[in-house]
Amino acid sequence: MAFSIDSRFSFAADQPTDVLLQFEAAAIPEQVLSEVATDLSEADHVGRVAAQDGIGERIWIRAEGTFEVVHRARVELRRLITPLESLPQLDPHLLPGEAVEYLLDSRYCPADRFQSFVGEEFGSLRGGAAALAMRDWIAHHFTYTPGSSGPNTTALDSFVERHGVCRDYAHVLVTFARAAGIPARYVSCYAPRVTPQDFHAVAELFLADPSVPGGGAWHLLDATGMADPHEIVKIGVGRDAADVSFLTSFGPTRFLAKTVSVIAL
Amino acid sequence: MAFSIDSRFSFAADQPTDVLLQFEAAAIPEQVLSEVATDLSEADHVGRVAAQDGIGERIWIRAEGTFEVVHRARVELRRLITPLESLPQLDPHLLPGEAVEYLLDSRYCPADRFQSFVGEEFGSLRGGAAALAMRDWIAHHFTYTPGSSGPNTTALDSFVERHGVCRDYAHVLVTFARAAGIPARYVSCYAPRVTPQDFHAVAELFLADPSVPGGGAWHLLDATGMADPHEIVKIGVGRDAADVSFLTSFGPTRFLAKTVSVIAL
Amino acid sequence: MAFSIDSRFSFAADQPTDVLLQFEAAAIPEQVLSEVATDLSEADHVGRVAAQDGIGERIWIRAEGTFEVVHRARVELRRLITPLESLPQLDPHLLPGEAVEYLLDSRYCPADRFQSFVGEEFGSLRGGAAALAMRDWIAHHFTYTPGSSGPNTTALDSFVERHGVCRDYAHVLVTFARAAGIPARYVSCYAPRVTPQDFHAVAELFLADPSVPGGGAWHLLDATGMADPHEIVKIGVGRDAADVSFLTSFGPTRFLAKTVSVIAL
Amino acid sequence: MAFSIDSRFSFAADQPTDVLLQFEAAAIPEQVLSEVATDLSEADHVGRVAAQDGIGERIWIRAEGTFEVVHRARVELRRLITPLESLPQLDPHLLPGEAVEYLLDSRYCPADRFQSFVGEEFGSLRGGAAALAMRDWIAHHFTYTPGSSGPNTTALDSFVERHGVCRDYAHVLVTFARAAGIPARYVSCYAPRVTPQDFHAVAELFLADPSVPGGGAWHLLDATGMADPHEIVKIGVGRDAADVSFLTSFGPTRFLAKTVSVIAL
Repeated sequence: MAFSIDSRFSFAADQPTDVLLQFEAAAIPEQVLSEVATDLSEADHVGRVAAQDGIGERIWIRAEGTFEVVHRARVELRRLITPLESLPQLDPHLLPGEAVEYLLDSRYCPADRFQSFVGEEFGSLRGGAAALAMRDWIAHHFTYTPGSSGPNTTALDSFVERHGVCRDYAHVLVTFARAAGIPARYVSCYAPRVTPQDFHAVAELFLADPSVPGGGAWHLLDATGMADPHEIVKIGVGRDAADVSFLTSFGPTRFLAKTVSVIAL
Repeated sequence: MAFSIDSRFSFAADQPTDVLLQFEAAAIPEQVLSEVATDLSEADHVGRVAAQDGIGERIWIRAEGTFEVVHRARVELRRLITPLESLPQLDPHLLPGEAVEYLLDSRYCPADRFQSFVGEEFGSLRGGAAALAMRDWIAHHFTYTPGSSGPNTTALDSFVERHGVCRDYAHVLVTFARAAGIPARYVSCYAPRVTPQDFHAVAELFLADPSVPGGGAWHLLDATGMADPHEIVKIGVGRDAADVSFLTSFGPTRFLAKTVSVIAL
Repeated sequence: MAFSIDSRFSFAADQPTDVLLQFEAAAIPEQVLSEVATDLSEADHVGRVAAQDGIGERIWIRAEGTFEVVHRARVELRRLITPLESLPQLDPHLLPGEAVEYLLDSRYCPADRFQSFVGEEFGSLRGGAAALAMRDWIAHHFTYTPGSSGPNTTALDSFVERHGVCRDYAHVLVTFARAAGIPARYVSCYAPRVTPQDFHAVAELFLADPSVPGGGAWHLLDATGMADPHEIVKIGVGRDAADVSFLTSFGPTRFLAKTVSVIAL
Repeated sequence: MAFSIDSRFSFAADQPTDVLLQFEAAAIPEQVLSEVATDLSEADHVGRVAAQDGIGERIWIRAEGTFEVVHRARVELRRLITPLESLPQLDPHLLPGEAVEYLLDSRYCPADRFQSFVGEEFGSLRGGAAALAMRDWIAHHFTYTPGSSGPNTTALDSFVERHGVCRDYAHVLVTFARAAGIPARYVSCYAPRVTPQDFHAVAELFLADPSVPGGGAWHLLDATGMADPHEIVKIGVGRDAADVSFLTSFGPTRFLAKTVSVIAL
């Protein structure tokens, strides 16, 4: 499937401020990009570095005054999608080293605190079956409520309050998975059926790779149900939202506007 | 300088439980190891993987019943130590990609929430001078109080309560540094003057490398004042304590005992 | 001084929901009310009870659909105002029993956690002088920032982030005072110079009563500096905002609109 | 039933420190006290005031050095005990004013955040039936684990982690009840079957009084199952543990020892 993406946002800084941006469709084998354009306002300096796990890029700018970002791309997805139902979970001692950090606690995903709950609620299941049961549990118990969460909202808050937005849904799913011994990362992405249309966030779980005996692979799973793996255009991945915010400011900035358009072609 | 390390701990699991261990002096260029021995109780399986940033190793075991760990090593430190006072801070757009994650929020270090405080308190300083001022601020305002913190204590809690142990001191220093735009990681280590003797924790800051024009390097800094860089034997590094706990259990375990001995030879 | 108050707000409930309201200028000796009118939409039931410490009233309604509240009053203040500078603090063992609860931790004011900070920062002062120093400290270190806090924001959050609105300023001042052994309560009020005009919140501290040897009295203090004691029309008091919200809903409601007008006559 | 109580504790303060104590069996109509003795170490001053809701007394002391407290009493309980199963819940607009504060959020009981969960889990029940279902839910999902919680642990923490001690169990039950519109207070008490024997804590819920048409009364309920209402000797009541700690210190103190003995006669 192919998608046309057009996203724009702007913000203002009263004095020169370092800002980290990550908003572009990632150029990775499973995502073929064409007609890509990224336009940024004039900045004192601009730097680009590879983002986490080599997925996408981070852009540093030093902004002052009003700063505008426009990104357009055509993305064709060539992702191999595996049904999760019967995917085994890898024993931890067989995990590759780089997956281990995705089992550990992060800013918004204090997974260790959920071991009792996860053991009780999902302990009879393993691997993909457990992951799907977690997703269903969230879908059943949560209400998608724009405005109900903020920048400090953790999976613990969302779990108690039972509402949130895509970011919160992803944090809870990531947290549950880690508590069950499944490495899980947070994926910032574009997807066409997000309502209201905006940047989106889903989870990605490290389970068996059916094509490689003994091997593992990352598998996408959206706790909100708004995006299937074949519709998810990855921007970047990280431990949680702290790692892949589209805008991280090292100093005061005022957010001005944002529009995101994702059209299935 | 050389150190003789002898550390031992034990724990018990009522049922087979996956446990992640990281307690060995890391074999890295700046630490020459000899007479190394690690003894573990019999386990269902054992796996070793490279730990974060390639510093040290993580050990997976699947434990049941009482499990004992003994580690002994002789370590000679060949660390180049640079006075921090005049070390410049790197502009963010010049940071290597792998340093960027150490600017972002983690489980125990919600750095974004400290930008106002850090700007007001340390905003007139940059680089190594800022880092030293942060260390001094902590030393002046905090009381080292064993037992005053727990597994959920964040830098925010410690900042308000003004007490803690090495882990908390390191978290606060890491948090302040990140809020000032200095990449900072948490270092689990051995050091000889830690009182009471135990595993230790310090911060490591990414500042200019005086030997490489335009380059950066990691520099150790102990907010507790109990360890100078030439006495720090690294075990591992991470975003914060969640990444380099000597024992992370994926299921219930009971901690039994621990003794740590670090002797300067 | 006299004030003309006109406040209105509306909200909606999809199903019958119990709602607790407290928005009226309190009829207490220091506030002489005239031309008072409170209009409420039709409700399944309405109940009125005395509010905390006998200051003002709480109104219970059972609302469904859109619900509107209008309150108008003319209030003449006859408050005795004492300069705080030299007011002594009462020794705890001399406090009346009903003041003691205002020394203890509440939802948004975890005062015990601030004892170290308060002792270090304000420990050389007592009574009114300490209270004024606390107010000045907040004024100096905080930025009044509408939208920067939410319903879960505690004094601990505000203390770290250094911004907030009147509610947060009052919580921090109440917290500091309690940590210093000064009973402090939270006052919901109307005041004319609040910008943007809205319900307001200040602290009230229990210090010596200069007119009664050995006795104590409550003294108003606004950490935001927007209201002097002779301009504060009390609505109600409580441990913190949880006790005197103008609207507390026991079930989901949607807030629709609010306007507050307070004019000095 | 009658009980013999003997409780002792000691602490130390390096400098003169105000300390609030509440540890005595309360002299209230339902508890007939005899052979009462309270011995305190010499203090700079001692003050006694009525405690919250007139149940028991608070003692202020100004302590320096080692301070010892001994309390002995014989208590005969004459409590009317009503089975909760069929007790109706009072409509909020019929609650007496003094019960309303027990519906609101407090330090350890952020009840508003649990409205969704409580509505979903217990929404089909009301009054005593809901309260018993809440108690059973906690008993089923929680593990009583000494040492698993600390002074900052809230009902939210316990709800997520699914373990705690009597204090935590009581906080969660109080929180659930308030979220369901049932006023609930925290009761510090003595009870004979507490294991390990210590001070105990239970909840008390304001439901219908079967002997007074339209009236309400407080009904004891222990989420840990260790104490039935006919075995509970009340010390004091409050919003939560912050209000009825046996020792609240306004300055640093070191806790030294505690023994509690409660024997059914």
